[in-house]
Amino acid sequence: MDTCIFCKIVSGEIKGDVVYRDENITAFRDLHPVAPTHILIVPNRHIESVSKLEPADATLMGQLLLTARKLAEEAGIAESGFRLISNTGKDGGQTVFHLHIHLIGGQGMKHPMG
Amino acid sequence: MDTCIFCKIVSGEIKGDVVYRDENITAFRDLHPVAPTHILIVPNRHIESVSKLEPADATLMGQLLLTARKLAEEAGIAESGFRLISNTGKDGGQTVFHLHIHLIGGQGMKHPMG
Repeated sequence: MDTCIFCKIVSGEIKGDVVYRDENITAFRDLHPVAPTHILIVPNRHIESVSKLEPADATLMGQLLLTARKLAEEAGIAESGFRLISNTGKDGGQTVFHLHIHLIGGQGMKHPMG
Repeated sequence: MDTCIFCKIVSGEIKGDVVYRDENITAFRDLHPVAPTHILIVPNRHIESVSKLEPADATLMGQLLLTARKLAEEAGIAESGFRLISNTGKDGGQTVFHLHIHLIGGQGMKHPMG
């Protein structure tokens, strides 16, 4: 996607604060963190949102969650705890239309869900 | 797990408001919904949290997310949008220690993330 900012971070065209990268997944720090740890984990392939997932994407999605677990460990928050969030569409508050999981931790959550 | 309430809903020992069930996954309505649609999606096997995931759980985790997508469609919120949340540990606000994904939608989110 020529205009997708996350695709550009994945490709390296825009320099993100990348903390993890493999052939399927890239993770980088959120520019506007809401907590001491706030990392975005994205599939390298452009998928708009959870609503656009296909059955064949199951393994990739599982790898995203396992990467979140690994990054939580590396950030030292696997035991203290963290919240994973993925927003889809307008009601979900999605602002970048390239599927991503927020890994948020390093302090207790300030806001209720929903 | 003898004392886990989600294991008991999975097994049928406690009657939940189950909206989906297969050999690996069960989904049921949250008892204290924070939005018009609030469904919990859980692996049938007891896994405490995202922090306890093993690499072999990747496919199962992907199936959880694809089930969330399917249930969002059935609830008529795939286009309007929704938020997926999984809380881990104390800082994440986890209250039941059987891994679960919250599917929340049917209205715009009221609270910021984190």
